[in-house]
Amino acid sequence: MLSQVVELIENKQRFGITTHIKPDGDGVGSSLGLHWLLKSLGKTAEVIVHGDIPPAYRSLPGAGAIRDVERVDQEYDAVFVIECSDLERPGIAGLENEFTVNIDHHATSEHFGSINWIDSTASAVGEMIYNLCKAIGGRVTKEIAECVYMALVTDTGSFHFSNTTERTLKVASELVKAGVKPATISEAVYNNYPWSRIELMRQVLGTVKRDKSRKIAYLRQTLKMREAAEAIDGDNNGFVNIPLSARDILAAVYMREVGENEYRVSLRSKGDINVAKVAERFGGGGHRNAAGLRIVGDWDEKEAELVAAVGEAVERAEAIAAGDITVAPDVL
Amino acid sequence: MLSQVVELIENKQRFGITTHIKPDGDGVGSSLGLHWLLKSLGKTAEVIVHGDIPPAYRSLPGAGAIRDVERVDQEYDAVFVIECSDLERPGIAGLENEFTVNIDHHATSEHFGSINWIDSTASAVGEMIYNLCKAIGGRVTKEIAECVYMALVTDTGSFHFSNTTERTLKVASELVKAGVKPATISEAVYNNYPWSRIELMRQVLGTVKRDKSRKIAYLRQTLKMREAAEAIDGDNNGFVNIPLSARDILAAVYMREVGENEYRVSLRSKGDINVAKVAERFGGGGHRNAAGLRIVGDWDEKEAELVAAVGEAVERAEAIAAGDITVAPDVL
Repeated sequence: MLSQVVELIENKQRFGITTHIKPDGDGVGSSLGLHWLLKSLGKTAEVIVHGDIPPAYRSLPGAGAIRDVERVDQEYDAVFVIECSDLERPGIAGLENEFTVNIDHHATSEHFGSINWIDSTASAVGEMIYNLCKAIGGRVTKEIAECVYMALVTDTGSFHFSNTTERTLKVASELVKAGVKPATISEAVYNNYPWSRIELMRQVLGTVKRDKSRKIAYLRQTLKMREAAEAIDGDNNGFVNIPLSARDILAAVYMREVGENEYRVSLRSKGDINVAKVAERFGGGGHRNAAGLRIVGDWDEKEAELVAAVGEAVERAEAIAAGDITVAPDVL
Repeated sequence: MLSQVVELIENKQRFGITTHIKPDGDGVGSSLGLHWLLKSLGKTAEVIVHGDIPPAYRSLPGAGAIRDVERVDQEYDAVFVIECSDLERPGIAGLENEFTVNIDHHATSEHFGSINWIDSTASAVGEMIYNLCKAIGGRVTKEIAECVYMALVTDTGSFHFSNTTERTLKVASELVKAGVKPATISEAVYNNYPWSRIELMRQVLGTVKRDKSRKIAYLRQTLKMREAAEAIDGDNNGFVNIPLSARDILAAVYMREVGENEYRVSLRSKGDINVAKVAERFGGGGHRNAAGLRIVGDWDEKEAELVAAVGEAVERAEAIAAGDITVAPDVL
C-alpha cells in the first residue's frame, strides 16, 4: 500500500529501482521519476536495468545514468520493482534476496514484493509516482514531471486509450505546470525512429490485403524485407494498427517471418471482437483487442487459417451485438 | 471580449452558429458545443455550415442537425462565426448583414465581427467555449463536453503540439469528468478513414526517397494512384508526416499531381527550419513547420528545385543553431 511505501522511504536511505527488460515508457519514466523524487528527498537512489534503454527514452533526465546490470551489485535498503508481473521480469539476479517494493498498475500482479502497492485504477505507474510525490509532500520538480509525463503519454497512447481518466489528464496538466513541454516528449517518442522504419513500413504496407468480408486486413513481413531495410527491433511498432485506421476494418493479422516456415503473429481488433481467444487456439495469448502467437507451417496456409479464425471472432461479436446469441461477458 | 459575449447571450434569444468551409474538428466541435450550451440556457440555436461535414465529426451529438446552407435563410438575433479569419471563410451569403460574433484563437483574426472575442492563448476555440460555459454559469453537459473534447484533440494533435498547455489538459480532464470517453473520440478521428486511404498510403509511401544529405524525404502522389485507390479528399491527411517519424529526417516534400505538369506541394519541417520561407519563394505560404504551394513544370525538375530549396533552409537553421550566423528571430 501507498502508506507503507511512504513509511519505507521516510525511514530508509539507499534505494535501487528497476523495471522489466526491454522497458517501455512507463517502465523507464516511472523508474527515473521515482529516482528524482528520492533524490529530492535527500536519499541515495539509482536505476538499474538489464539491457538497453530504447532511444525514445534516452533523452529523459537521468537516463544516461541508468546502469545496465545482470545482478544486484550494490547494497540497497530496498529495491523498487516497477511494472513487473513477477521478480523474474527485470532479468536481474539477486533481487530475490532484497527487500523489494512491487509497484504496478496491473491487477494481475503476483504480489511478489516485501511491500506491494498495486493500483489498477492508475493509467500508468507514472500516475502512481505522482501520487506518491504528493503523499510524501515532495515537490514535483521539472525532472520528475518530464519522466512521469513520458510514462503517461506512452501507456495511454497519447491519451487515446480507454485507460485515460479524468485523473490522468489532471496529473498531465500539473506536470505541464511543473515545466513539461508536451511537444518535446511527443517528438522523442514518435519521431525518434531510424530511417529503416520508413523503409520497412513501405515494404510491409506493400503486402496489405483484405479478406472476402473486407473487414479483416492482413499483412506480411519477410526476413528479406527486414534485411533490405536494415531494420532493428522496434522498427515495426504499430504497423499492425495502420489498416485499422480504416473504419470498415475490424481486425488485422500481421505475420512476421522469423525462421524457415516460422512466424510471429500479431492480432488486433476493435470493440468486442476477441482476438485473445483466437490467439489461445493457436497456443498464444494476450488481451481482447491485442494478442499474439507463434506459428509454424506453410505461409499461405497458416495465413488463411488465421484470417478465417479471426473472421469467426468478428462474426461472433457481430452476432452478439445483433442479439442473435447471448453469452456471459467472460466467454465473449 | 468574453464579457460582451456573455451579455449578448443573456439578452438575446435566437442564435445561428457557423464556421469555415471544409471544417476541422475545432470548427465542428466548437460550433456544436456552443449550440448545446445555448440550448441548455433555454435559447434557440442552430449550426449552419456550407458544404459537407467530414466523417470524423459526424458522430458528435447534434452533428446530424447541422444545416448545409449557401445563404442566411433564418432570422437570428446574432450569428457566431467560429474560427474564421474573415467573414468570407464560411462561404455563406448574407452574413455581412447579421450581427456577428467572431470567436477565434488566432491572433491574426481580422476583427470582422460586431463583437470580437479573440484569445490566442487558447489551444482551440473549444477551450474558449468551455471558458464561456463557466463564465455564464452553465453546466458542462455530456454533449458540450464531447464536442469540446473533439475540438481540443484535433487542434492539439492529441495533445502533441506545442499549443498544449496546462489549461488545455485541465479542461480535457474536466470534460472526461463530464462524461467524455477519450477512446471514442480518438476512434472517430483516427480510425474513421475509408479503405482507399490505406491503398493510397501504400502507393505514395512506395515513392519515398531521401536526398543526398539524408535529412530530407520526398514523396509523390500521381493522379493514377488516386484513381487506382478510388481515393477521396482527406485520404492523404498526414502522409507528409510519415517520413518525419525518422529522427534524422528534418524536412519533407510531398508533391501531388493535380493536372498536366501541375502539382500541389506540402512542405513540413522540424524545429527552427523555416519552410514557410521556402513556400513563399515559390508563390505559396504557411507556417514555419508546415507550408504549401502550387507549382507547374517538369516533375523531376521541380522536385529537385524544391528539395534543394528546403536543403538550404535546413543548412540555414543548422548554421544558426551552430552560431555560425546570427539573425533576428523574425527573419529566421
